[in-house]
Amino acid sequence: MIKAGIIGASGYTGGELLRLLVNHPNVKLELATSRSLTGKPVTSTHKHLESFLDLKYENPEAGEIKDRCDVVFVAVPHGSAMDYVPELLDGGTKVIDLSADYRLETSLFEEVYETPHKDPRKAVYGLVELHPEAAEEDFVANPGCFPTGTILAAAPLAAAGLIDIAVFDSKSGISGAGIAPTQTSHYPNLAENITAYKLTAHRHRAEIFQELNRLDQKLRNINFTPHVIPSIRGIFTTAHLFTKETLSNDDLKTIYEDFYRERPFIRFPSGIPTLTAVRGTNFCDIGFEADKENNRVVVLSAIDNLVKGASGQAIQNMNLMFGLDEKLGLWLPAAAP
Amino acid sequence: MIKAGIIGASGYTGGELLRLLVNHPNVKLELATSRSLTGKPVTSTHKHLESFLDLKYENPEAGEIKDRCDVVFVAVPHGSAMDYVPELLDGGTKVIDLSADYRLETSLFEEVYETPHKDPRKAVYGLVELHPEAAEEDFVANPGCFPTGTILAAAPLAAAGLIDIAVFDSKSGISGAGIAPTQTSHYPNLAENITAYKLTAHRHRAEIFQELNRLDQKLRNINFTPHVIPSIRGIFTTAHLFTKETLSNDDLKTIYEDFYRERPFIRFPSGIPTLTAVRGTNFCDIGFEADKENNRVVVLSAIDNLVKGASGQAIQNMNLMFGLDEKLGLWLPAAAP
Amino acid sequence: MIKAGIIGASGYTGGELLRLLVNHPNVKLELATSRSLTGKPVTSTHKHLESFLDLKYENPEAGEIKDRCDVVFVAVPHGSAMDYVPELLDGGTKVIDLSADYRLETSLFEEVYETPHKDPRKAVYGLVELHPEAAEEDFVANPGCFPTGTILAAAPLAAAGLIDIAVFDSKSGISGAGIAPTQTSHYPNLAENITAYKLTAHRHRAEIFQELNRLDQKLRNINFTPHVIPSIRGIFTTAHLFTKETLSNDDLKTIYEDFYRERPFIRFPSGIPTLTAVRGTNFCDIGFEADKENNRVVVLSAIDNLVKGASGQAIQNMNLMFGLDEKLGLWLPAAAP
Amino acid sequence: MIKAGIIGASGYTGGELLRLLVNHPNVKLELATSRSLTGKPVTSTHKHLESFLDLKYENPEAGEIKDRCDVVFVAVPHGSAMDYVPELLDGGTKVIDLSADYRLETSLFEEVYETPHKDPRKAVYGLVELHPEAAEEDFVANPGCFPTGTILAAAPLAAAGLIDIAVFDSKSGISGAGIAPTQTSHYPNLAENITAYKLTAHRHRAEIFQELNRLDQKLRNINFTPHVIPSIRGIFTTAHLFTKETLSNDDLKTIYEDFYRERPFIRFPSGIPTLTAVRGTNFCDIGFEADKENNRVVVLSAIDNLVKGASGQAIQNMNLMFGLDEKLGLWLPAAAP
Repeated sequence: MIKAGIIGASGYTGGELLRLLVNHPNVKLELATSRSLTGKPVTSTHKHLESFLDLKYENPEAGEIKDRCDVVFVAVPHGSAMDYVPELLDGGTKVIDLSADYRLETSLFEEVYETPHKDPRKAVYGLVELHPEAAEEDFVANPGCFPTGTILAAAPLAAAGLIDIAVFDSKSGISGAGIAPTQTSHYPNLAENITAYKLTAHRHRAEIFQELNRLDQKLRNINFTPHVIPSIRGIFTTAHLFTKETLSNDDLKTIYEDFYRERPFIRFPSGIPTLTAVRGTNFCDIGFEADKENNRVVVLSAIDNLVKGASGQAIQNMNLMFGLDEKLGLWLPAAAP
Repeated sequence: MIKAGIIGASGYTGGELLRLLVNHPNVKLELATSRSLTGKPVTSTHKHLESFLDLKYENPEAGEIKDRCDVVFVAVPHGSAMDYVPELLDGGTKVIDLSADYRLETSLFEEVYETPHKDPRKAVYGLVELHPEAAEEDFVANPGCFPTGTILAAAPLAAAGLIDIAVFDSKSGISGAGIAPTQTSHYPNLAENITAYKLTAHRHRAEIFQELNRLDQKLRNINFTPHVIPSIRGIFTTAHLFTKETLSNDDLKTIYEDFYRERPFIRFPSGIPTLTAVRGTNFCDIGFEADKENNRVVVLSAIDNLVKGASGQAIQNMNLMFGLDEKLGLWLPAAAP
Repeated sequence: MIKAGIIGASGYTGGELLRLLVNHPNVKLELATSRSLTGKPVTSTHKHLESFLDLKYENPEAGEIKDRCDVVFVAVPHGSAMDYVPELLDGGTKVIDLSADYRLETSLFEEVYETPHKDPRKAVYGLVELHPEAAEEDFVANPGCFPTGTILAAAPLAAAGLIDIAVFDSKSGISGAGIAPTQTSHYPNLAENITAYKLTAHRHRAEIFQELNRLDQKLRNINFTPHVIPSIRGIFTTAHLFTKETLSNDDLKTIYEDFYRERPFIRFPSGIPTLTAVRGTNFCDIGFEADKENNRVVVLSAIDNLVKGASGQAIQNMNLMFGLDEKLGLWLPAAAP
Repeated sequence: MIKAGIIGASGYTGGELLRLLVNHPNVKLELATSRSLTGKPVTSTHKHLESFLDLKYENPEAGEIKDRCDVVFVAVPHGSAMDYVPELLDGGTKVIDLSADYRLETSLFEEVYETPHKDPRKAVYGLVELHPEAAEEDFVANPGCFPTGTILAAAPLAAAGLIDIAVFDSKSGISGAGIAPTQTSHYPNLAENITAYKLTAHRHRAEIFQELNRLDQKLRNINFTPHVIPSIRGIFTTAHLFTKETLSNDDLKTIYEDFYRERPFIRFPSGIPTLTAVRGTNFCDIGFEADKENNRVVVLSAIDNLVKGASGQAIQNMNLMFGLDEKLGLWLPAAAP
């Protein structure tokens, strides 16, 4: 059994890691940390895990963590992960970092997050469908939630060098904003409403840019505007992609199905993808339609921001890093509706 | 492997049976019927099951169904189940009927549902926590969703002969009303609203009455008013129970924990139960508080109407009928939040 | 023109007072106070009032307030209103207090709110339909939101001495919990969920008890359990009333229509009342049905907690206190759906 | 008093016309038609209007309608309005048509709506902020809901000839789909979800195109994708506008404020516009931000689809057509939250 630890287990991504790992056939949950909740049962905050878990929150040093764990999921805010990662890796523990700390080139990280970086180490960018090399590595930077949905929507066309301008208009559930109440998550402010934020300069744009550029260095006109809709989970991305050639729906079908062949978590449902069909799951459902007029293609992607956009993808990476079937512990259909 | 069939698989309870059975380790899905969708892939309507199922909807005779299946889940409207059940049972197939046809004494059924009954057979009332004898039988009438939540909330006090008056004020998600759009399920009518219906005479009252009377024949003053709240899933029942003696919170704790000892799907979470913690699961979470003033006890129960209130409970019954651990295929925590 | 001031104008009830008063034909908004927002435009927080208001938040002494205002609405937390009220009243300014400070007998207030009271003054309990004597007074204690909906539901039967046991099961929108984000108002906790709280001992029970006892001193068995549903506004109360006599639906119709004759804000819509039909308005919509079995009557009331349950009712009181038609400024239909 | 009639009064836009007209100081509601509900009280379906209206639905001939009404609002499905309009206009009755029948050039209408047109008459396109000439006319084609929000968002830049490519990504509440339940409006399908539809070819695109072309004939690259979010009312449009020049936020502020000077229903709230602040009102709230990178401007507009996007705008047109202040009967702030 793989002994797994979670640093920062009291938030939503921590909760999802726990939910998925309690039933993972190859994993033993060894450790869940929380500074402020040390000593309390994990189920005192994650009440839905009652009957599944006996763990108490702990707060050990990185040294102890690496001794007890074969793999550690780091689910702390950006800027804090780099305090744990070096010692864990040096001790031979595999690390999957769900924070932003190792997703970008160091200098770009410092510019975007306005924080100095303490550790020059490089991680694989763990968007599994584009980076299967996670299987060979001990250190993965798990992608951001918005980048997961947007990059997967555009990658096949970017890889084909077909995109001229990309406009990503993303609509997220509120759980991406975390477990702490804010004015944005205040029910009277969100229900029956929608909000946009960071209209032109969200930090995730840098990740999107970096990854799409790996696929097509000429693609520079990349635009991203996030919204929050009245939904707990899910990110629905509408990618308006202006292409260099006129594409038909059949062209799109061929390009997308070829690109994602043998990728079990990418589905092409008939009709429009829904958040309902991916809720609680690791799937990314994709749909598309060519515009007859303006060399525009509309690509839609739907993910669960806490699963494929965070904890599920982290476990998918873990499976690869330990030589397991990437579906292990994740092959669950959504409880729809 | 148990070969399982579902008669009436295109609705919500059919969808939940499919979702839970595709990952059940001892079950092979043999058959999913739908009269109107015959020939179409099951995933054409249950899109969230894409990648999990290859079945097409069929419409065979009962004779063929019994030959192909070890167990059949009947998920058709009341009045229709009795058309299938006799032939299936006579052919040696086990049957779990999710309709109302066999839940009540025949004459009471005819009065409440205003339909003649065609079949005098008796079924076990499959509320597993009260009727473990399902393990010895081939035929189970799966309880209604409201009765499941209300009876489980009151059973310990009823069995102790302590209840004088019971008022069940239940709040259900809309999925209990089914997959077909109606004025009640029309988003502008339900969102930011709540509705009550069948204020004094809902059909489920007869089931509640019958079962609580098995536990306490003197308990006659049983009242039930259902509501629909803006939620897809879940039933939250507030049971206002006026008792013959003054009870303390400690008394309640002892009575409830003793009654449900060794029942894995009954939990007593700290604080108020939530629909969130049971969504998609087979749990019934229960909480309670004694009123200092009026010999009133407030008991709260939370279930997922489509799981513990329908398809999950049906599988729990199946597990027992086949000598399996009742948790098999059902031991999944909620994807909260 | 009546010069009106609002003490504590930055919350939801303050916002609703402002919304309704900007279009009131006989009122000039003179003053809106907020300690923490002094100097900022009122529309910086109440953005929906942009183009309707030029006021800035102020923070004057009570002495200045009484000089500038003919009437003052006090919309501060309980325990704080009594700091303003005496000086305002002594200065000849009429006062409508939306806090709990003057709703209960002083000693009962101290017991329920666990705070000493500083001021022995008595106010009219401003539930207009039961207390038209507000018209003769300078000081009104505006009722709580839950009491408004529950008392109006039961008053006709209480006044007739017909109620034996009253169980009020109320379902409120979240705006009653205020403008500050909390775990309860956190969207992921409230959406697709329902919660109960203060199951047996909510403070509003004392108000309900006091008022129903004025109508029937023998009525002691009064029970109240509040819930919060996923809705911004509204309180829907299900009153399970056990009566001393068997009543028919026709009896109920007569009793209720007689009791509320000439009360413009009480309506008896066909079918079940909805929160939709009262949203943003000062109406209390009532429905009822007699149970054939247990001498139970189910009465339903729907109000907007911020209007009839707070600010609208306060203006209704103001209208009476100044000899105006009680409908002035309030005669607006809901924007349904 | 202006005698007003509504043809097709039983739907949502009919309901909103009634709600706003019952309190309009210069209007007497003369007539509300419904073929299927003839003889029933209007409040039997629009229950929120109880106490405000005594009308019964009627079904008179166009000839009678023109005799009884000074102005008629036509709120029937497209293709049906043209059956009423000619006779009404010929009889001297002013007409405001809320259907699509007269919004487009006849030949374009026939192409987009795939229906022959029976009547060559021209109407003013009643987007008041762009077409004040409604004041001189007897016949107005009231704009579609999506076109209202999108055109108002882009018009100032289009009029300045600055737009190169326009991508309108609109998010609508479900009430735009009407009062009849459908799979799209089925609560379990919409809640906690979002859907897109007519990704590249929604009929409203033709209106958007026509109007923006009036402002800038060179602007051809216009793209529109509508979505439905879990909200009853409101349309939030995110306009991604690629401009010919690099614009700053200050440039935008100048251009927009100049363009909409003296237009009372256009507001520029601080921060991001919300559906909350316009719900139930005739306002269009607009915000914007220049992207530093790609000559992109993000413009946001928020309207209530049933008011500014339909019935409110129709009344705004009526006010102009009768020489009244355009704000009459419409100067109501939102009941936020």
